[in-house]
Amino acid sequence: MDSSRFSPISWKEGILTLLDQRVLPGKKSFLNLETVDDTVTCIREMAVRGAPAIAITGVFGLALGARAQSGNVDKTDVENLIAKVFASRPTAVNLSFALKEAKKRVEQVLSWEDHYKIWKAYAVEMMQKDLSDNLRLGKNGVSLFSKSQKEFHVITHCNTGALATAGHGTALGVIRSLRDAGNKVVVYADETRPFLQGSRLTAFEMMEEGIECHIITDGMSGWLMNHKKIDAVLVGCDRVAANGDTANKIGTYNLAIVAKEHSVPFYVCATRDSFDLSLEDGRKIPIEMRKEEEVTVFDFLKNGKGELYLQPGTTSPAGARALNPSFDVTPHKFISSFITEFGCFLPGEIGSRLS
Amino acid sequence: MDSSRFSPISWKEGILTLLDQRVLPGKKSFLNLETVDDTVTCIREMAVRGAPAIAITGVFGLALGARAQSGNVDKTDVENLIAKVFASRPTAVNLSFALKEAKKRVEQVLSWEDHYKIWKAYAVEMMQKDLSDNLRLGKNGVSLFSKSQKEFHVITHCNTGALATAGHGTALGVIRSLRDAGNKVVVYADETRPFLQGSRLTAFEMMEEGIECHIITDGMSGWLMNHKKIDAVLVGCDRVAANGDTANKIGTYNLAIVAKEHSVPFYVCATRDSFDLSLEDGRKIPIEMRKEEEVTVFDFLKNGKGELYLQPGTTSPAGARALNPSFDVTPHKFISSFITEFGCFLPGEIGSRLS
Repeated sequence: MDSSRFSPISWKEGILTLLDQRVLPGKKSFLNLETVDDTVTCIREMAVRGAPAIAITGVFGLALGARAQSGNVDKTDVENLIAKVFASRPTAVNLSFALKEAKKRVEQVLSWEDHYKIWKAYAVEMMQKDLSDNLRLGKNGVSLFSKSQKEFHVITHCNTGALATAGHGTALGVIRSLRDAGNKVVVYADETRPFLQGSRLTAFEMMEEGIECHIITDGMSGWLMNHKKIDAVLVGCDRVAANGDTANKIGTYNLAIVAKEHSVPFYVCATRDSFDLSLEDGRKIPIEMRKEEEVTVFDFLKNGKGELYLQPGTTSPAGARALNPSFDVTPHKFISSFITEFGCFLPGEIGSRLS
Repeated sequence: MDSSRFSPISWKEGILTLLDQRVLPGKKSFLNLETVDDTVTCIREMAVRGAPAIAITGVFGLALGARAQSGNVDKTDVENLIAKVFASRPTAVNLSFALKEAKKRVEQVLSWEDHYKIWKAYAVEMMQKDLSDNLRLGKNGVSLFSKSQKEFHVITHCNTGALATAGHGTALGVIRSLRDAGNKVVVYADETRPFLQGSRLTAFEMMEEGIECHIITDGMSGWLMNHKKIDAVLVGCDRVAANGDTANKIGTYNLAIVAKEHSVPFYVCATRDSFDLSLEDGRKIPIEMRKEEEVTVFDFLKNGKGELYLQPGTTSPAGARALNPSFDVTPHKFISSFITEFGCFLPGEIGSRLS
């Protein structure tokens, strides 16, 4: 059972309901999607974000597309439908994989009605698997915390919660699971510049959950570790190399160095698909450089309708330059443990655990 | 000679000219002050900031106040004038000290005209001393950089430049001196959340100087040190304890830890009055906790006229909590050298250098 107090993505009586992430944190508003075009728009305009959530929305989109048809299908129609959903976010690896699998599942199926049933079932299955993986991951994470303690203070970075998944989340999932196990949890959320996923999304999720949360700027973690006993740092990840080097949102590496200096355990929460054993180490992970304006101005958060959810504001002189790597790589030596749905283990154990 | 290409504070033919820091970085606008009330308003509304600059402005204010009078003075009038300037920023230690000294210098003086001359001379003297201290500090700093190298890449935090002093600056003064010695310097400026002194002020100063500058978020320094050879980190300070522990703008400590991890020299630039030998170590330095809203919303930068120079913008859900310590303390073990107007030395040498 998902213990989250709100569901960013749900399916009920043929309607897909999504929390509109374009207007967070200012507004908590849900969108009801009934057509494939609705889902395509939501993915394109980032009403939904996070790899698992995008893939699930895409497959529900196929189902909604099939439902609008009747009779027997032409292979070209199916291919056009899949291509339309794929075009909503061509770079999303999980979406692309899910659409390939969806296509495979209807290869011998003739009626649109059966297409609908099969795709709907697949989307529900994906949603349930993502949720149950996160719940297992969360439970495994709890095992790393002292049994004799009832209150835990943790620092987290970026947003790794229910908002990016089918529910529960990864690093925030461990926090939810800690709370569900009867503990008091106090979260310190790095605001996570430049995109502010911490102050916009993590703070929102924690407030919805009723979990005490304090936003800190990305430069405050050292001060905090000196002034409060911090039990752990919990972060998510984008990609883990075979030796355990981990790519995650920019600022993660600084936080890992600061945690090590203060002997605070640094845990990376990862599901199976984050491990990329084809990469020997972190030097092979490509780092996307994003637009300088995300650092120098504050008007980057436009939603699809041209509305802003952060007002424009210049934080630097006109023409100022900036660097904006979207990720950094934390070397494995800074990682105390990985927390996954299949257990907790050291970076050096990746080979044996994943083979 | 000050090598800065603009003067944030200057005195010419009886007029005090200040760069209006309330409208930076959007606008480069100068204010001409001709009365004591003008100076009081500028200090109160933070058109001028930085301890030395405020003290100098205050003493020029006394001179302008004396000039507006004629004939012989009554002691009470002098005291009222000094009290008026003092009230513009009662918490500014440098201002309070300068006003006491200004009072002492006119104890036997009878005419307003002589008051004017003496105060004007004292303000000019303060301005020249601050500038020459910074120029000496800058030159001393250059001695720490390799003679055989002609290009240097440095990271800095907050604003420690001409904008906070009578010119040249401390950490930015070292950068100016490095440039003046014929080197190419590339600056990476921590944006310095929450108040953004790096992206607003340091980037502005460097652009005015024609020195290449790239803004980074406070979480990017580790990534940067892994991707570029960084020659040094240069920061200023608010207060140095007897053992070398240093209080400076929040985020400095994280940067120091990250620098040590990458074996990048970490230099603290300080003038004599920053050393407080009455404090045994950094634990004795009080840390001001500022308003949470500086972290959670973006409308904090109102100038005295109620104009905003950052537009309002919520970066977190309504009601979100935050921590906002204004300073942190970097333990002396992270400091490679102090750079002062009286030389460069290790934290362990403070006692012998300052006795």
